[in-house]
Amino acid sequence: MKMAPFRQIVRWLTGHCESFGRPCKAGNTRDLRKHTRMFSNTPRLYQKFGQTSSKSRQHSVGVIGAGRIASSVHIPNILNNHRLQLRWIVENNPEAIKPLQDKLYLDIPFYTSDHTKSLLDDPSLSAVFIFTPTPTHYDIILSSLHKGKAVFTEKPTAEKLTEISTLYDTAARLELPLLTGYMRRFDAAFQDIYDMLVQGQLGKLHICKVTSRDSPKPSYELLRTMDRTGCNILSDMAVHDFDFMSWIMQGTAPESIYVVTHAHDPIMAEIGQPDVSSVIMKYPDGSVAILDSSRESCYGYDNRVELFGSHGMATLENPRQSFATKNFDIGALQKPLMHSFPQRYREAYQNEIDHFVDCMEGKASPRVTKEDCVLTGLMVEAAVESYKQNQAINFPEFLSNRATLISRHQVA
Amino acid sequence: MKMAPFRQIVRWLTGHCESFGRPCKAGNTRDLRKHTRMFSNTPRLYQKFGQTSSKSRQHSVGVIGAGRIASSVHIPNILNNHRLQLRWIVENNPEAIKPLQDKLYLDIPFYTSDHTKSLLDDPSLSAVFIFTPTPTHYDIILSSLHKGKAVFTEKPTAEKLTEISTLYDTAARLELPLLTGYMRRFDAAFQDIYDMLVQGQLGKLHICKVTSRDSPKPSYELLRTMDRTGCNILSDMAVHDFDFMSWIMQGTAPESIYVVTHAHDPIMAEIGQPDVSSVIMKYPDGSVAILDSSRESCYGYDNRVELFGSHGMATLENPRQSFATKNFDIGALQKPLMHSFPQRYREAYQNEIDHFVDCMEGKASPRVTKEDCVLTGLMVEAAVESYKQNQAINFPEFLSNRATLISRHQVA
Amino acid sequence: MKMAPFRQIVRWLTGHCESFGRPCKAGNTRDLRKHTRMFSNTPRLYQKFGQTSSKSRQHSVGVIGAGRIASSVHIPNILNNHRLQLRWIVENNPEAIKPLQDKLYLDIPFYTSDHTKSLLDDPSLSAVFIFTPTPTHYDIILSSLHKGKAVFTEKPTAEKLTEISTLYDTAARLELPLLTGYMRRFDAAFQDIYDMLVQGQLGKLHICKVTSRDSPKPSYELLRTMDRTGCNILSDMAVHDFDFMSWIMQGTAPESIYVVTHAHDPIMAEIGQPDVSSVIMKYPDGSVAILDSSRESCYGYDNRVELFGSHGMATLENPRQSFATKNFDIGALQKPLMHSFPQRYREAYQNEIDHFVDCMEGKASPRVTKEDCVLTGLMVEAAVESYKQNQAINFPEFLSNRATLISRHQVA
Amino acid sequence: MKMAPFRQIVRWLTGHCESFGRPCKAGNTRDLRKHTRMFSNTPRLYQKFGQTSSKSRQHSVGVIGAGRIASSVHIPNILNNHRLQLRWIVENNPEAIKPLQDKLYLDIPFYTSDHTKSLLDDPSLSAVFIFTPTPTHYDIILSSLHKGKAVFTEKPTAEKLTEISTLYDTAARLELPLLTGYMRRFDAAFQDIYDMLVQGQLGKLHICKVTSRDSPKPSYELLRTMDRTGCNILSDMAVHDFDFMSWIMQGTAPESIYVVTHAHDPIMAEIGQPDVSSVIMKYPDGSVAILDSSRESCYGYDNRVELFGSHGMATLENPRQSFATKNFDIGALQKPLMHSFPQRYREAYQNEIDHFVDCMEGKASPRVTKEDCVLTGLMVEAAVESYKQNQAINFPEFLSNRATLISRHQVA
Repeated sequence: MKMAPFRQIVRWLTGHCESFGRPCKAGNTRDLRKHTRMFSNTPRLYQKFGQTSSKSRQHSVGVIGAGRIASSVHIPNILNNHRLQLRWIVENNPEAIKPLQDKLYLDIPFYTSDHTKSLLDDPSLSAVFIFTPTPTHYDIILSSLHKGKAVFTEKPTAEKLTEISTLYDTAARLELPLLTGYMRRFDAAFQDIYDMLVQGQLGKLHICKVTSRDSPKPSYELLRTMDRTGCNILSDMAVHDFDFMSWIMQGTAPESIYVVTHAHDPIMAEIGQPDVSSVIMKYPDGSVAILDSSRESCYGYDNRVELFGSHGMATLENPRQSFATKNFDIGALQKPLMHSFPQRYREAYQNEIDHFVDCMEGKASPRVTKEDCVLTGLMVEAAVESYKQNQAINFPEFLSNRATLISRHQVA
Repeated sequence: MKMAPFRQIVRWLTGHCESFGRPCKAGNTRDLRKHTRMFSNTPRLYQKFGQTSSKSRQHSVGVIGAGRIASSVHIPNILNNHRLQLRWIVENNPEAIKPLQDKLYLDIPFYTSDHTKSLLDDPSLSAVFIFTPTPTHYDIILSSLHKGKAVFTEKPTAEKLTEISTLYDTAARLELPLLTGYMRRFDAAFQDIYDMLVQGQLGKLHICKVTSRDSPKPSYELLRTMDRTGCNILSDMAVHDFDFMSWIMQGTAPESIYVVTHAHDPIMAEIGQPDVSSVIMKYPDGSVAILDSSRESCYGYDNRVELFGSHGMATLENPRQSFATKNFDIGALQKPLMHSFPQRYREAYQNEIDHFVDCMEGKASPRVTKEDCVLTGLMVEAAVESYKQNQAINFPEFLSNRATLISRHQVA
Repeated sequence: MKMAPFRQIVRWLTGHCESFGRPCKAGNTRDLRKHTRMFSNTPRLYQKFGQTSSKSRQHSVGVIGAGRIASSVHIPNILNNHRLQLRWIVENNPEAIKPLQDKLYLDIPFYTSDHTKSLLDDPSLSAVFIFTPTPTHYDIILSSLHKGKAVFTEKPTAEKLTEISTLYDTAARLELPLLTGYMRRFDAAFQDIYDMLVQGQLGKLHICKVTSRDSPKPSYELLRTMDRTGCNILSDMAVHDFDFMSWIMQGTAPESIYVVTHAHDPIMAEIGQPDVSSVIMKYPDGSVAILDSSRESCYGYDNRVELFGSHGMATLENPRQSFATKNFDIGALQKPLMHSFPQRYREAYQNEIDHFVDCMEGKASPRVTKEDCVLTGLMVEAAVESYKQNQAINFPEFLSNRATLISRHQVA
Repeated sequence: MKMAPFRQIVRWLTGHCESFGRPCKAGNTRDLRKHTRMFSNTPRLYQKFGQTSSKSRQHSVGVIGAGRIASSVHIPNILNNHRLQLRWIVENNPEAIKPLQDKLYLDIPFYTSDHTKSLLDDPSLSAVFIFTPTPTHYDIILSSLHKGKAVFTEKPTAEKLTEISTLYDTAARLELPLLTGYMRRFDAAFQDIYDMLVQGQLGKLHICKVTSRDSPKPSYELLRTMDRTGCNILSDMAVHDFDFMSWIMQGTAPESIYVVTHAHDPIMAEIGQPDVSSVIMKYPDGSVAILDSSRESCYGYDNRVELFGSHGMATLENPRQSFATKNFDIGALQKPLMHSFPQRYREAYQNEIDHFVDCMEGKASPRVTKEDCVLTGLMVEAAVESYKQNQAINFPEFLSNRATLISRHQVA
């Protein structure tokens, strides 16, 4: 039983879910469509957010955290979602508030975080969007769920796997949607190649390559605030690639993980953070995942995927700033790639909000599941371990050791 | 003076504008940037829509007409523009109202058109969006302007050239923005190729090719309602191409226009409306425009441009539904083109609303001018003439005859 | 009988061929494959060039004319065709011989043209390749045929239509292959789009667009030597596009031809030769051909086609110098297009030689037929007429007038 | 001195060449152009093959081995190279001779291999092309060199590294060109991306990705004949990728090599040969190479490269069978990739023959050097070691161990 340690650790983390641990026979499970990904024993169709009429049909929601991605991406999308009515924003940084009010013509109240509890008491509030730093996620999400609110949170769900597990279990028990924002899953092109794979159009998967190169490079200030005990290019960037693998591999865990990194930028080297990473993983069915990430792509935001199977190859390319090309003596110059992720994933970010509302209205179940988040977290941990040891990690062994560790210390 | 008839007719239509009639020496005028396109004698920076604070800074606006394009494209965009507050919608068809309310969660009032007059009396209303059938444009726009409202209207501005002229003159006199919605001008790719040309990156223009193929085919019901006295593929579809030519040629008029059409679809033949048209125009500087339009492209909405100059060629290609491609034994299958214009011009439609608000706030002057609209209208008329006569039309002669006709009958 | 004048003139030109004049019902004939294009009454499978063994199986051939395209393209291809043995080259210009000998390591004899007659007397010689100036074609081809040689000639077959007609009739009577080198027909991509059309994959053809832009610009010396009585961009460049139309329209003649040209280059204007031309033709079945040609494309040799039909669109794009692309801050720079036609049509030129040998060996019949060449010639004439009159030409009327003229003066 | 073991082993293999062992500071060496890659102490410009006149200037050459790639690719290219005169072919399999004679109309003599020695005695023979199975290379090449012939050989040069070393040393001592046929180096696109890198257009290299997927799958018969003691997908296919890395990294050796493989095909699994492999290598300057190979790509021959650097990314894409595309309701279908390597590398194979003749004529020095071949061989060995051990290999340590082994047993 190769997958035993993974099942064991997940069972430990989940406590009760016997139906968990989807078998790794991808040949079988690939044919399954996403709608089969629900827990069989936890109804995910939430009926409590009914519809009455017009404006009154809108769901009242609050936002906690108005930082960079919240103010530039999520809050405008919430405002523009016809089914939502944004009631308030919690943000402690007063300097963040004014530009947001000005830009979005907001006349809703802003609060500091000490008001969060009482705001959540409002029974007319249906859902909360969490855009605060990761360490605060667990407490806020838990409180929100206990107050009966649906919760959308930026990734990762929480810092520790046991926390993630608890949050999802709580949401399931209270029959509330909890959605973690892995936006790629809501992008049309990602959905297209996923469909090609699971519908069997590509045959058996042999190689999956994912390229993720950020643009512009995050500021050194931001990078300095990031976790420096591990390897943040793995936990902050490659985490999206691991989530993608969890998704397309139907929750199957890899057999081995090997990581190579380098800090080309002297300041990055000084901070102790690689700016480039490559990950290679082999799966039980023989398929191989190759992930490469970079903190800086000078030619724009670059995120591509290639799925090579026995019957075909699916590729996902980058959009460009426009479809204009100039042909002249030195060649044909196409416009650059999108500047950064808000442009690249503009529609995906809108779609994920819409999907969340669908979940609130019982029309869908969250596309990102507890198992996805737990497996993704475990893959990041194993990758960081490979980074530290500079050698290939046997994933089942890693899980086995980790389970022992967990059961001994009761910490994840 | 080759351009004399054109200048003459425009002078007749405009009454006063001596600065009009941009010379056709494109070699000179190509270097001019769009901000030079304002009338020198009509200030286009409208200061009256000042800013105060937050929600109160929003401009109150009304919508007249909630038909197909209004409900699917424009009204959602108005709702999502943070600077606008939609106050009411005028629509006589009760069946159009309910779906709109349901889909957009609207709680604003709907009125029938007999309330328009009194709604326009509201001094707190800043602007009106006109999405009614063309024959109604003139009266509604004129009333709105006289009530001091900024006006955005779907193309064409009005049915007759004298009407268009009057409307723009009125707007100029009252210092109110009047914007006609030729959405291509607000598309990033169109802007890119325009910039390449006017910045001289392509050298002297030799050939301009524009392809416009609709998807899906408009219903026969709709086509039957369209004007059948002329050739509606020219006045309804190719009009966008003529506007594009007005734009990139800096208002220069062509020397000749030749049209070839055909009705392949037997029902179209029966209606007397071609489903394919090709137009070839020669300009005084020797550049040639080749426009081809079709009522139905089975492979999706197809709108492409090619600008071939002495120093390079700019091309504008179509976006696809996603960037996913499947490579298999018979080739590489890219996703289809966008289904229709609302998808293709999604952002352009948002941009044109935003540009209109910029005009209201004095930050920009309307990118589509009276001369553009008049010239475009005249080109359509000459094209229809070529269609009727089945021969090439000398444009200056056509203008000359038309001016005679106008002065004789005082009708356009 | 719309096609009557065309049939009449062709019957006049052909004298005897009752089966000629393929009907213009493209809807029917599109399904026909190329092997059906043979004359039913003239056997095109030439059995006289049998096979024995190894080197002795090779066909002895001679070349007449070693100018630019012959020395850079055709002679190397003849040398590299394993089925041919080049025996001699006729060339009067001594300066052309040495570089050719040096470059190709030739040890075969060169002769001046006064030896042509005796060289053709050699019964072991199977075929002759004609690369001399057009005015000399008729005499050389006729002599070669009469001496029993298969003939490959660069386009056009001859100067006058009556000459072309006589040559093809002679070849047919003597059962010898006569192939005129329209190389596009032997290009894989052209063959692909042709197949898509005739196999019905595109449905009914609505619009055909052909772009032909030369690179580099021919020298003024060369252009000055070209025919200046007509419009050489039509007779020298667009002739390939007319041939393409003859091919894909299965020999159907157009209803109307309209030409617009311009000389942007002052020296070209002085020579009286346009450097840009656009042609629009309407066919009896309603399909429209749009051809645009330029003497100079600064971004490389540009030859594209688009076939728009009721069920799909076929496009033919340009190859580039290599498949390397550089992505950097200002965009993605693809390599330039091929420099000129020898690079672009490298394989097509090899294929057409190979096809000619197939014809010699009775394995194929010449893909370019008499009717193609006659129709192409008539289209050029009508296009030149439109150029001179600056108006659309009714093609059947043009043919009718021309037939009258021919019968009266017995000259074409 | 990290590179010490590599230098040591190479010194042992080369015996004398002090100038060898290009330093791994790629930052410096990237600026060097290919012409600096010659040994400083071994003159590579061979003057002995002078030019006299016409046919007599051609170089007489012989071919040893007329198997699959020889008969389909190399022999036609030798015949079509105007500077070469093929005098004879050595081939023991009589069944291979007849089709070759028939197809290429050959009238030159064929010999069995027992005549090789006497054929090489012919002083008028300038060069020999070796297309025999690898185990025979060493003896034939050595004999040929000793008889004063220039040698072109298919890759790999020989079976063992000591043999490769001896052959190159012999060629250098005798001042004879020895060229090993890594055809990618003679492909325009590969040369383009190489130039972008070494000219500094991409800045510092961060990631290099090479994809190599064969089409069609080699027959099981052929695969069964291949070496099954190691991992033939590494030694037979990935060897081209290792050669590419040697080339672009200017002979720098990697620090680590990690290999993952899988046999998806049950028969391949039974033979004990993986059909997919992935290799990840880290270089001393931090750049990372990711190579993935497959024995079978159902969508055609797929060979792509991506060079990601600090200033840009170069990509090398695949050519397609033609530039025709069909746009229809389900998308845009481009033609498939080339069927196999002879089509993909058609021109590269011609170029490498031409380069070899340039080397014979003293106009160039062999683009593939001894160090390249030795380093490539060592990388294959280390990769096979990683395959066997299923863990990452420290390359310097591997070299160190191997050197010890070599010096102990005097075998490579």
